[in-house]
Amino acid sequence: MLTTRFTERFDLAYPIALAPMDPASGGALAAAVSHAGGLGLLGGGYGNHEMLEREFSLAGRAAIGCGFITWSMARDTSLLDRALAHRPRALMLSFSDPAPHARKVTDAGVPLICQVQTLEHVQRAIDVGATVVVAQGTEAGGHGFDRQATMTFTPEVADYLAARSPSTLLLSAGGIADGRGLAAALMLGADGVLMGTRFWATREALIHPNAKALVVKARGAQTLRTSVYDIARGRRWPAEYTGRLLVNDFIRQWHGKEEALAAVQPEEQARVEQAYDGGDCDCANVTVGQAVGLIHDIPSAGEVVSAVARQASALLHREPVAA
Amino acid sequence: MLTTRFTERFDLAYPIALAPMDPASGGALAAAVSHAGGLGLLGGGYGNHEMLEREFSLAGRAAIGCGFITWSMARDTSLLDRALAHRPRALMLSFSDPAPHARKVTDAGVPLICQVQTLEHVQRAIDVGATVVVAQGTEAGGHGFDRQATMTFTPEVADYLAARSPSTLLLSAGGIADGRGLAAALMLGADGVLMGTRFWATREALIHPNAKALVVKARGAQTLRTSVYDIARGRRWPAEYTGRLLVNDFIRQWHGKEEALAAVQPEEQARVEQAYDGGDCDCANVTVGQAVGLIHDIPSAGEVVSAVARQASALLHREPVAA
Repeated sequence: MLTTRFTERFDLAYPIALAPMDPASGGALAAAVSHAGGLGLLGGGYGNHEMLEREFSLAGRAAIGCGFITWSMARDTSLLDRALAHRPRALMLSFSDPAPHARKVTDAGVPLICQVQTLEHVQRAIDVGATVVVAQGTEAGGHGFDRQATMTFTPEVADYLAARSPSTLLLSAGGIADGRGLAAALMLGADGVLMGTRFWATREALIHPNAKALVVKARGAQTLRTSVYDIARGRRWPAEYTGRLLVNDFIRQWHGKEEALAAVQPEEQARVEQAYDGGDCDCANVTVGQAVGLIHDIPSAGEVVSAVARQASALLHREPVAA
Repeated sequence: MLTTRFTERFDLAYPIALAPMDPASGGALAAAVSHAGGLGLLGGGYGNHEMLEREFSLAGRAAIGCGFITWSMARDTSLLDRALAHRPRALMLSFSDPAPHARKVTDAGVPLICQVQTLEHVQRAIDVGATVVVAQGTEAGGHGFDRQATMTFTPEVADYLAARSPSTLLLSAGGIADGRGLAAALMLGADGVLMGTRFWATREALIHPNAKALVVKARGAQTLRTSVYDIARGRRWPAEYTGRLLVNDFIRQWHGKEEALAAVQPEEQARVEQAYDGGDCDCANVTVGQAVGLIHDIPSAGEVVSAVARQASALLHREPVAA
């Protein structure tokens, strides 16, 4: 047990949440995290009714939540209705304004989690009634801003909340992959952490084994933020959002040549999608953050939760612990 | 007292070092940090004999060290001889290969501190006999790399040292400005911290009051990495080093237009230098990191050391502490 306001509010053993990664965070991964004492969040991603039903079903009776890419889900808000019909443990909205959808979540009695990249986002999350804000640093894998890192963003958000909305809970995200990161986040003022990359590299994650194998060997300096995969896939992300990925041949080919890439988008989309299905990671996106340098195995998600909590607990009680 | 391997090795009360900032870290600031129980490091900067003598003299009998911008000091290595003649508590080399100078430091019996931005730099520091490596994340103010943030770089370096040179000490730098940051860095595996921006905003720092006043109001998202001031001042930094600064009119005017700036360099150098002397911070560089959002006052450096140590100690012993 590692008790914080977050564990108390959500009745968890450990203050650890799974990032609702699309497509890694399927029902099996989300359920495994919840069963181990964390908060599993299904990756609703861009939004797909069939996928949502299948993955909620695979999670069985586990108490999981669900997260969406807000601007994409907004094109078909019946996706949100569908998720809420499953009585999720929490509903997380990331990337663009949560306001048009927040009321539906809170009226359903479901705790709202808002991911934020700026203090303006924090204020918006407070205004729409978020129970939790997830302060995402630029280290994080996948989409986010390139403005501020976890080491300063977490305490700055903590101060903001302390002054304006002290009952709002704070999770730290970006660059956290072990008990050291969890313990550090708690020191910085967070009530817990949301981890993506570490859970991406688990047995349950819906990711090709070739990609997981790459991450075991990678160092933290081998990722960067880019828009090349969004351009190739024709996904119109709002301004300032880029994705952090492991640098590969595709990124080396196109990063900095975004206009030329846009001119051949259909061909490159086909090539990327085929590569993704086939596990060709020279071409397909490997969507991970700077924490890759701390990841050296592909355990089960339950083992991750236990190991992270155990290491953090030992550090917080100042007992000797292996790094 | 907050005991770590770093405090034991250097006989300090607290595991806190002053970044040898040029020109902020003069003799008075370095002495104040050492008198308060930390390790004060005089900012030798680009290297200037007259300045070195003056500031060492101002430090009086305080046990301070000294740091240089390595590639610049290398143009006149008698600067290093001069610093070593003062029997510094430590000699810190930052930015480019320490190898040509390391032997002179260690042969003098002075502990060598190497600042690093990559794991390759860490290996180099081990090879040349560094007593301490300072792992600098991209959050840091002033020069550095834009590769990796403190939250992942500190533990990745800690793992690297544990496997290859466990007796080498590790300080974490970048984004640390209060006791939360110090406690977090210790959780991440550091033996202490090196702080720049927080000490930059103290009474003793050799910085114009207008610039200090700006920082009290600034948020962490208001800084960026750029080369525009290096170009304007005609300073030929090695590849990949950029400087983090508070965004101002000068940066808005020139960032992204570096070639045009180079074409008018002499005029802009004169304009920047005049602005710097006059405290015109719309034009002059305000060299601070993402930690500005955590800084709300201009105390004495001794008060900073005490407050940071007290807050960290309280957090590490899990007593309630105000954020």
